[in-house]
Amino acid sequence: MSLDPARMIPMANAIRALSMDAVQKAQSGHPGMPMGMADVATVLWSNYLKYDASAPDWADRDRFVLSAGHGSMLLYSLLNLSGFAKPTIEDIENFRQLGSPTAGHPENFLLPGVECTTGPLGQGLAMAVGMAMAERHLNAEFGDDLVDHHTWVIAGDGCLMEGINHEAIGLAGHLKLGRLICFWDDNQITIDGSTDLSTSENVRARFEATGWFVNSCDGHDHEDIARAIDEALAEDRPALIACRTVIGYGAPNKQGTSATHGSPLGADEVAAAREKLNWKAEPFEIPDQIRSEWRSAGSRGADVRSEWSSRLDASEKKAEFQRRMAGDLPEGFSLDEFVTKLVRDPQKVATRKASENALEVINHRLPDTVGGSADLTGSNNTKTGELGDFSADNRGGRYVYYGIREFGMSAAMNGMALHGGIIPYGGTFLVFSDYCRPAIRLSALQEARVIYVMTHDSIGLGEDGPTHQPVEHLQSLRVIPNLLVMRPGDAVETAECWEVALQQKKRPTVLALSRQGLEQFRTEEVEENRSARGAYRIKDAEAERRVILIATGSEVGLAIECAAELESRGIGADVVSMPCAGLFDEQSPAYRDNILPNVGPEEILRVSIEAGTTFGWERYTMSNGLRIGIDSFGTSAPAGDAFDHFGFTCEAIIPKIVAKLEA
Amino acid sequence: MSLDPARMIPMANAIRALSMDAVQKAQSGHPGMPMGMADVATVLWSNYLKYDASAPDWADRDRFVLSAGHGSMLLYSLLNLSGFAKPTIEDIENFRQLGSPTAGHPENFLLPGVECTTGPLGQGLAMAVGMAMAERHLNAEFGDDLVDHHTWVIAGDGCLMEGINHEAIGLAGHLKLGRLICFWDDNQITIDGSTDLSTSENVRARFEATGWFVNSCDGHDHEDIARAIDEALAEDRPALIACRTVIGYGAPNKQGTSATHGSPLGADEVAAAREKLNWKAEPFEIPDQIRSEWRSAGSRGADVRSEWSSRLDASEKKAEFQRRMAGDLPEGFSLDEFVTKLVRDPQKVATRKASENALEVINHRLPDTVGGSADLTGSNNTKTGELGDFSADNRGGRYVYYGIREFGMSAAMNGMALHGGIIPYGGTFLVFSDYCRPAIRLSALQEARVIYVMTHDSIGLGEDGPTHQPVEHLQSLRVIPNLLVMRPGDAVETAECWEVALQQKKRPTVLALSRQGLEQFRTEEVEENRSARGAYRIKDAEAERRVILIATGSEVGLAIECAAELESRGIGADVVSMPCAGLFDEQSPAYRDNILPNVGPEEILRVSIEAGTTFGWERYTMSNGLRIGIDSFGTSAPAGDAFDHFGFTCEAIIPKIVAKLEA
Repeated sequence: MSLDPARMIPMANAIRALSMDAVQKAQSGHPGMPMGMADVATVLWSNYLKYDASAPDWADRDRFVLSAGHGSMLLYSLLNLSGFAKPTIEDIENFRQLGSPTAGHPENFLLPGVECTTGPLGQGLAMAVGMAMAERHLNAEFGDDLVDHHTWVIAGDGCLMEGINHEAIGLAGHLKLGRLICFWDDNQITIDGSTDLSTSENVRARFEATGWFVNSCDGHDHEDIARAIDEALAEDRPALIACRTVIGYGAPNKQGTSATHGSPLGADEVAAAREKLNWKAEPFEIPDQIRSEWRSAGSRGADVRSEWSSRLDASEKKAEFQRRMAGDLPEGFSLDEFVTKLVRDPQKVATRKASENALEVINHRLPDTVGGSADLTGSNNTKTGELGDFSADNRGGRYVYYGIREFGMSAAMNGMALHGGIIPYGGTFLVFSDYCRPAIRLSALQEARVIYVMTHDSIGLGEDGPTHQPVEHLQSLRVIPNLLVMRPGDAVETAECWEVALQQKKRPTVLALSRQGLEQFRTEEVEENRSARGAYRIKDAEAERRVILIATGSEVGLAIECAAELESRGIGADVVSMPCAGLFDEQSPAYRDNILPNVGPEEILRVSIEAGTTFGWERYTMSNGLRIGIDSFGTSAPAGDAFDHFGFTCEAIIPKIVAKLEA
Repeated sequence: MSLDPARMIPMANAIRALSMDAVQKAQSGHPGMPMGMADVATVLWSNYLKYDASAPDWADRDRFVLSAGHGSMLLYSLLNLSGFAKPTIEDIENFRQLGSPTAGHPENFLLPGVECTTGPLGQGLAMAVGMAMAERHLNAEFGDDLVDHHTWVIAGDGCLMEGINHEAIGLAGHLKLGRLICFWDDNQITIDGSTDLSTSENVRARFEATGWFVNSCDGHDHEDIARAIDEALAEDRPALIACRTVIGYGAPNKQGTSATHGSPLGADEVAAAREKLNWKAEPFEIPDQIRSEWRSAGSRGADVRSEWSSRLDASEKKAEFQRRMAGDLPEGFSLDEFVTKLVRDPQKVATRKASENALEVINHRLPDTVGGSADLTGSNNTKTGELGDFSADNRGGRYVYYGIREFGMSAAMNGMALHGGIIPYGGTFLVFSDYCRPAIRLSALQEARVIYVMTHDSIGLGEDGPTHQPVEHLQSLRVIPNLLVMRPGDAVETAECWEVALQQKKRPTVLALSRQGLEQFRTEEVEENRSARGAYRIKDAEAERRVILIATGSEVGLAIECAAELESRGIGADVVSMPCAGLFDEQSPAYRDNILPNVGPEEILRVSIEAGTTFGWERYTMSNGLRIGIDSFGTSAPAGDAFDHFGFTCEAIIPKIVAKLEA
């Protein structure tokens, strides 16, 4: 431990100088937080954080999460100063410019050392909860020799005021995540001004009420910061350290005001700050002595890492540990055999139940999975026999009772996936994907393999009514980039979709599953995973093909029924099952043209059938096709009545098709 | 006050009987909560709640919010027993059936007496916060004579565990909403089982930490319930009353377990419960004596209401009060004059600034508005000069500093709109519409006039990068039923969109506004509000029309520029500005066909230009049209560079159009 002010103060000021210079040059950004938290960050990164700047991917490194992501220059400064290969000083000079890894908010996919993408407030800390869960779980599986690290967070008032904070800290407190330590940048300033404008909360008391250890320090006193950290490390509960800081510390005229939050300080104030901080170097220049101190901080962990590597080499679990952390599935993993069994023994089950059946196989063969549900375990069918509960007393358990915390669950799953070593899945009702949505977006943006098990996927859930019936949700999820939305229509497709989801190393999947039982239409043995194509022909026209029915999930069976009726009238009809529109879009033009030939409706009429909004279905039916859907909110009624009411019957659909054909 | 057990216990048991019978008959529903909270509800509705069953719309009634909406049979029982016209016993026998007003969850648009739609957990209490704000604000405007009521809530563990609970109670505590009283159904059971599975929180301490008065009672002891209410009423802070209850109280074998939460009790258990409760009446029958007691409870407020009516009649504010509560705009309200001024003096401003300019006029002429922002006041441009801050000390203020609570703000706005007398609007960044989304959906479902001011509406926000740049948001909002999504392209359209939004008595509006300055293209004086058409032709083709460019918001200017370039090449091009696709869909076929003639691309090529996903634009471009958009996440760069990068320049767009025309 070295807290010598002669060394430490210039180290902290180096962060301040880089931060204000970068924001000033970009004429855009947030200098206040990096300048305010520079001291805390310096103490942490020079004396506590376990890392090796030369090996950002070291599996047993501490995780550092800048939940207050707008303060990105704090993190970029730390990475540069401590010796990470990136960002270079040139990168920092290009802060917030096109193509630079120093984006406005930290992006995990642009820069090693950025553990997760932060900026959407509150989610960083919530992801850190997931990382801390992953750490304890992997520790239970692989032991102290291989997994023994902490998760550190810097959060601001915004992170603490957001609703997700309640869910995240409630989960962390309940699970007694003692290796999670969160610094709260208690600067009493938000964008609109003093925090007094909008909150009167006793933050400390609230964290204590949820089982956290709460400590305080002067965020500009290095000894006091170290004391607070030492005390937090001694606790076996998650810890909040309230750091009393001055936003924009060092800017003599603006510090302590919201003026420093999200705007450049201005040339004059930057000059005045240099004066006050006694910082003589030119913009973007770091004096050798200070750089050298920082480099030695950044290589503190090299020996520890080398010892860890030796232990890994000596471990009989080495191959499995490396596989897990690399995110690879076990050699030869597939569900082929299970699918074959299903094909040979057709059954009518809800796809949520089919998902449970698939999970029984998956969870048995794939130790990577950690499942859970936001208090709908029995409805989402997410728990299989051998998982065991993950709890404060049982870190080896693989099932999490997340409580009524959909958003917190989703963010925690992001954290687990990003930590590595775990494939998280979690359940809620599809309609509550709205509650999870900000985290689903981050799963997609961060390229995190998180699997959302979203059951009760249409009006087919019945009596719970409009608040619980998703109508717009499938399309509103399909529109998120880099997210697979899969809606299987029977037990076989459900297994196939699970296989596809598990294979996505760099994207999340939403599985939309039915509450109600569905007939199995996949009864032929085939070699390939047909759902992986996104859409495929499940029935060929017998009479001359005049119609292609395109359906998803619970409506595939209905489409098959309608096709039979059309054939009986001499109208040839293909049926295309489309469990994943996004994957279909990725197929070759030849494949797509084979499934949906590019001819007008006078030759072949395309009809989509999905118990949700028709919005967007023009992409597959073409403008002059027919779209069977629901463009209003649902209704409270038994499922069959609701389907009748909204015209999801052959009696209602066939006349529409015939009218269109005759038009 | 009468708490005579001989009267009260049968009254409470009537709720239990109706609830278990209805759920049993429907074979679907949630008996546990109504049976557990029957005593609390009976004390409240028979001795405290200010209401008159014969006048559900009485403006000065107390508001009762069943936040734990799955317990809908509690509310339906109360309404029926106390003498509301609906639901009838027949309606209750049709609980959860198609077309019955007794939907699975309470729906405000189906049944008078249901103050708001609840079911999506946590939002009921958050809406109640808005109702309590509305009450105090209207009290400040209209005085004790006309506005003097309380807001009561029943919330369950789910409501308290959801993230929005943190935002809602933080806001309520800060604003010292002393007329808000929330009963917590503390039954220690969630769907997955005991609350111990997922939470260790000290709920009381958490509420106290946010400035609430916290009280407790035995939820089955009427005297104790009354004591707790009396103490809460004496406080000038919002109050939580923790009611220790037994879920499914009265069902001898299942009470106290999660088995009673969401499933019928079963015929045997219903019979056993009748026995235990000493309830002799047949299913759906209420003994006369009990019904008479309930009717007298339900008419307790008749005299008070009649006195109130006399005061209203005598008040000089009567007309204005009635106008406000009816949700009518002032006679002759329009922005015509303001628009004319804008047209005559074209300016280049960001539409967020144009919105502020429109609000200056609106807020001055329309006392109904209560504005606010989730800590982005200066960015959303939501505060105008004369509003004053709504705070604990200034109930007459019309601007709310909501803090970093997007979801809480949105739900509170729903509550204000549903309370009546107020037109709420509130701001955040468009990307954070994801955080608000569950409440936006409820605005739409509940037919509430809430206006969402969502600025920074595209990659045009620049350097903040992908986490802050909406890409999929416009389309994902357009897909929500009964929601207007308006994206004006200049100052004139912005004013027009505000006018349209204010005119929607039964639907919410999202205004998507630019951060960056936009040239004004509306420079001709016209009689009508062109934006109210949803889309209109802003430029006619000069050369033979081969192309229609359809653009929204900041891309309309770009489309006009591209059209000029096309014309210079002899290619005639219309430009259609489409500030609101949803309103365009509502126009007559003739109007729509005039704007977008139904001819193939070989005659007229339709091109959409919007700085967001292309998903769904096929509806307007037709399948063979051209869609200029962004189908990936954004990028951190100055706005101009970001637009260049994603091809939003004539240089990038014209060749695509030409290639398509020549194909």
